[in-house]
Amino acid sequence: MTQAQSSRSWIESANDAATHFPLQNLPYGVFSHGSQAPRVGVAIGDRIVDLSVLDEAGLLPAATRGTFAAPVLNRFIALGRPVWRETRQRLAELLAADTPTLRDDAALRERALVPMAGARLHLPVEIPGYTDFYSSKEHATNVGRMFRDPDNALLPNWLEIPIGYNGRASSVVVSGTPIRRPNGQIKLPNEARPIFGACRKLDYELEMGFIVGKDSALGVPVRVDQADDYLFGMVLLNDWSARDIQQWEYVPLGPFNAKTFGTSISPWVVTMEALEPFRRDNPEQSPEPLPYLRQSARNAYDIELEVALRPQDAERAEPISRTNFRAMYWTMAQQLAHHTVSGCNVRVGDLMGSGTISGTTPDSYGSLLELTRNGNEPLKLAGGVERGFLQDGDEVVMRGWCQGDGYRIGFGEVSGEVLPAPKIEG
Amino acid sequence: MTQAQSSRSWIESANDAATHFPLQNLPYGVFSHGSQAPRVGVAIGDRIVDLSVLDEAGLLPAATRGTFAAPVLNRFIALGRPVWRETRQRLAELLAADTPTLRDDAALRERALVPMAGARLHLPVEIPGYTDFYSSKEHATNVGRMFRDPDNALLPNWLEIPIGYNGRASSVVVSGTPIRRPNGQIKLPNEARPIFGACRKLDYELEMGFIVGKDSALGVPVRVDQADDYLFGMVLLNDWSARDIQQWEYVPLGPFNAKTFGTSISPWVVTMEALEPFRRDNPEQSPEPLPYLRQSARNAYDIELEVALRPQDAERAEPISRTNFRAMYWTMAQQLAHHTVSGCNVRVGDLMGSGTISGTTPDSYGSLLELTRNGNEPLKLAGGVERGFLQDGDEVVMRGWCQGDGYRIGFGEVSGEVLPAPKIEG
Repeated sequence: MTQAQSSRSWIESANDAATHFPLQNLPYGVFSHGSQAPRVGVAIGDRIVDLSVLDEAGLLPAATRGTFAAPVLNRFIALGRPVWRETRQRLAELLAADTPTLRDDAALRERALVPMAGARLHLPVEIPGYTDFYSSKEHATNVGRMFRDPDNALLPNWLEIPIGYNGRASSVVVSGTPIRRPNGQIKLPNEARPIFGACRKLDYELEMGFIVGKDSALGVPVRVDQADDYLFGMVLLNDWSARDIQQWEYVPLGPFNAKTFGTSISPWVVTMEALEPFRRDNPEQSPEPLPYLRQSARNAYDIELEVALRPQDAERAEPISRTNFRAMYWTMAQQLAHHTVSGCNVRVGDLMGSGTISGTTPDSYGSLLELTRNGNEPLKLAGGVERGFLQDGDEVVMRGWCQGDGYRIGFGEVSGEVLPAPKIEG
Repeated sequence: MTQAQSSRSWIESANDAATHFPLQNLPYGVFSHGSQAPRVGVAIGDRIVDLSVLDEAGLLPAATRGTFAAPVLNRFIALGRPVWRETRQRLAELLAADTPTLRDDAALRERALVPMAGARLHLPVEIPGYTDFYSSKEHATNVGRMFRDPDNALLPNWLEIPIGYNGRASSVVVSGTPIRRPNGQIKLPNEARPIFGACRKLDYELEMGFIVGKDSALGVPVRVDQADDYLFGMVLLNDWSARDIQQWEYVPLGPFNAKTFGTSISPWVVTMEALEPFRRDNPEQSPEPLPYLRQSARNAYDIELEVALRPQDAERAEPISRTNFRAMYWTMAQQLAHHTVSGCNVRVGDLMGSGTISGTTPDSYGSLLELTRNGNEPLKLAGGVERGFLQDGDEVVMRGWCQGDGYRIGFGEVSGEVLPAPKIEG
């Protein structure tokens, strides 16, 4: 059997070169349709495979029994890497063009396959902890140039530490959830005291996140070369940011209200196994990191990323930035090793954001802050529309995919529309 | 019936003026003994009342049915303030000196009362999110003086914002859990690059924390005057801190590895109802806060606090600091209002730390950093022992109580012993 044949599915839409969800992908998510309770599914072409139905039919590995009739992926993820692998193999086999089991069983197929168009997608994991890193050298440099010292834009610790901070897990939402513009304290340059009001510099940040697949013990660091056991999969992530609130609040304990009002992730968790063909050489790091951060595996991933903006009243989202995840300076394995080197434990379902992903050219920046130089050079969009920062009604759409030979391993998209700030006396 | 009579229990140890757990307290916790599964209990004198047993016996409010045979308090807390009040009243009645129901039922009493000395105490709540504030003006000033500008120690945002940051919930542990000294990056003044190794400036921070009792909706701020519905109770909190790691990592995104290796809380959650007699006038705030932070209720609490240190090989812990929670500049109601004003949601079980509680005099500082001026003026302890920062084997014990007329509403203690750092190549 040729590679091409073995990667064809009897679900025709999965064989389209443009689909994000071919047989080689098989990302996990949580969905519901009609009045059904949310359950675990796998995206393939324009369909979702209801794994709780396949489980009931006895078609999945015994170890996964009962874990898919659940509103989150956590129980499945906690089964560990050998089970992830076995389940993926089984699903690939069941959905392959020449496997009749499901293909030729009309009644079972009817129950197990759900059109994606009619399904509701939910937050795929319960997130016990959310950490956000800051691992793009270009982004850190751009920000430092604007807000700190243009001549020493990169802080001295940045090349030594995969800088990260604790995020707020409660406000992580799934793609499609509208985001309410936050109110907060804003310090205007000519005023002695801050004013209170709606954020005037609302921004997105293009990021990716990884989902932790294994608990670690408190006090026991995870070594950089153990990372593969701890990385279940990846999502797109929009780290909505209120720049004016952030600038006033962030010294000395870091961003808080500027980031806690909402973080959006894409609904499909693409497994590290599906991304395996897109591993690339690590970025060059100079100076060579301290020993606990040195990696021998290839931990960079070639993932194309795109941000599009649909201004209020516009019909479609217009691409405004394009970059690649491969550009990140610190890898996920290094982030995890650093996170736990103090003894801090991680848990199944933890979300770890990459930090804003910016490339070297202005059209590859991952935030409006960088694209418009803090609002000073507004983007010019179709129909004479200009944007320094986001306006109410604007929608941000991020997409990501790995480009294979004739197929894509896609992440789908993460989108969110901006709602007006609530009116409160401040 | 006089006040004194109505506050006596048939459990004699609860009537001792020195106990932390008289009939007026009734704090909730989670315990186990023997091979039993963890369940919810209430501390009274030197006993724990097993609420799952009282529930089975039909002695508790119907709304609480089934919530106490659980390893965490979250389900009970989620029932809301009217149920907290009803349950507290029912328990106070059952344990009052003149109520025969439990007092005279030997078989039931035998099953429901557990000696605290033989019980194991567990983390009382599942903590979906942990936020740490920075609300002592004296502490913020002391730290600013040492690490930033001695002449402008308080940053300009401090008097406007109840500054806080997201903490790491996974590593919150219950009192008695040993704390492993973290390894991490340390930047020595004369070296071009950081070294890797065990923290040399390990410290505690004396804090209190409150436990959130009600979910709020994403996008909907909790007003300062709604706080009472959202505050379930309080605990003692030790925010262990690695000062050398912190100093190198914290700019610009705040403390991370310096704090994520462990945070200890006391096992008994003292309810806001029990603390009601100890409400005090709010601290004077100048400038007057922005309207969303203005409070009409009395939101300060008179809670005596003490830190004791048992150096390795010493027999007992020696008091090294004494202060009062009332000294805090920002109140819990203001912290909650600020946390949610951006639209960030809170969840039942969220833990919110006060920040280090320091008074105005050197013997009232809440950390070794302040007590020893960054290790430069070591504490002199019994037997000629000196301490700049914590050494392996040292145990830190924090205690807290409200002093009533002839009784105490106590928090018990939060303690932890320092274990050596793991040996890892760094």
